[in-house]
Amino acid sequence: MLVLLGIGLSASHLSEEARYHLSTAEKVYLDTYTNVLDEEEIAVLESVAGKSFFRASRRDLEDKMGDIIEEARDQTVVVAVSGDPLAATTHAALYLEALKRGVPVRYVPGISIHTVAPSLSGLQHYRFGRTVTVPYLWKNSPSFYEFLAQNRRLGLHSLVLLDLHPEPLKIPDAIEAILHWERKKRLGVLELGDLVIGIARAGKPDCFRFVGTAEELLDVRWGSPPHSLVIPGELHPVEEEFLYVVRKHGGEC
Amino acid sequence: MLVLLGIGLSASHLSEEARYHLSTAEKVYLDTYTNVLDEEEIAVLESVAGKSFFRASRRDLEDKMGDIIEEARDQTVVVAVSGDPLAATTHAALYLEALKRGVPVRYVPGISIHTVAPSLSGLQHYRFGRTVTVPYLWKNSPSFYEFLAQNRRLGLHSLVLLDLHPEPLKIPDAIEAILHWERKKRLGVLELGDLVIGIARAGKPDCFRFVGTAEELLDVRWGSPPHSLVIPGELHPVEEEFLYVVRKHGGEC
Repeated sequence: MLVLLGIGLSASHLSEEARYHLSTAEKVYLDTYTNVLDEEEIAVLESVAGKSFFRASRRDLEDKMGDIIEEARDQTVVVAVSGDPLAATTHAALYLEALKRGVPVRYVPGISIHTVAPSLSGLQHYRFGRTVTVPYLWKNSPSFYEFLAQNRRLGLHSLVLLDLHPEPLKIPDAIEAILHWERKKRLGVLELGDLVIGIARAGKPDCFRFVGTAEELLDVRWGSPPHSLVIPGELHPVEEEFLYVVRKHGGEC
Repeated sequence: MLVLLGIGLSASHLSEEARYHLSTAEKVYLDTYTNVLDEEEIAVLESVAGKSFFRASRRDLEDKMGDIIEEARDQTVVVAVSGDPLAATTHAALYLEALKRGVPVRYVPGISIHTVAPSLSGLQHYRFGRTVTVPYLWKNSPSFYEFLAQNRRLGLHSLVLLDLHPEPLKIPDAIEAILHWERKKRLGVLELGDLVIGIARAGKPDCFRFVGTAEELLDVRWGSPPHSLVIPGELHPVEEEFLYVVRKHGGEC
């Protein structure tokens, strides 16, 4: 059996179900490409599992997909992924390929940034539009900006994820990227004075959240990645008050 | 301290962090309004916590908000919620009120239907538009249908949640509701022959998933709630193949 297993965003997010599969599996691959855990957290998970993990890059998971699935034909093989294991395209392809080859496959969900960041923003989940990722080479592709403009036009909030490769982008990079395209295209996505929510290390014990203007966020010391950003659309009174109060209390998550 | 704690969608989703807070809290309220757990699962959680839960209706949580927060001033009070605890407006209001009163408040995330249903659909998370809920009195309000039309116009997928109160809607109700407004407004959201994904009891051991035409889904025996529905927008080739393969294999999640 192939188990696509979500770890969540920190070792403390591990579910009962995930713990069971880690400890009973014959072999565990850890996806290092989408990984947001540090070595200490990985060591905690390895001790839960009672075995060392094989580190797998995106390339490994794509090139050796067939091999991993065949390994899982007569033993339990876990592919452990930060967040939720079917949120990324590569893992959905792995799931699909296992189904096609007739190898039993199981999805074990995890706590995801798609849920945690909207929750930490205090904005209502059903008023978010599509999620947008700022690519590392943001000067070459305006599409993330155009999707933000689409959400804004509809009055919807935007969750902005930041590329982790080849190096993790930081919140000031993302703001710079958005303002760069704003100057070129002027679709009204973001001005320096607009209130936004920056979140570093969502779901981790040292999570840091700051509500402030885009300009203020440029100067915050965010610390280590991953970072994400929420850009509010039209605000309901409770949402507005939430931002105001969190802005005053700041810092903690 | 007030702890807003996400259980996830089944007892097996409980995180390490949630387990810790349940077992160390002086008092645990269980939100019964958004609850998707059965009595057996609640008993498992009570045994993890080592204490009985106080059942709290939506009304309790809203009317006694101040009392619950004041109780949390000098002891640890958990409000346990199915899924993620800040996905619903009432809990965000509780969090906000605690901040305003200077009572320490902590958010413990949970595995959410907002993540699990898109994952089970095999469709890419970042190509979903806003989430839509079909209200119990769907004949009185076309707005859920209009939001679906908006997503469809943008080529985006839609996660459709179904109201739980006063009685849980079922997938055939939701399809009937959408087709009702489709006949009236003709915005091209859904036809009987369109492929959609129905999911009953997402995240639970007896989860059931079926990919078929809207017409086929009307006749499926879905079993107990909660139910949700995913309506695809424009499909990428991998998404299309996923639907095709899951349609063939059907049933399991």
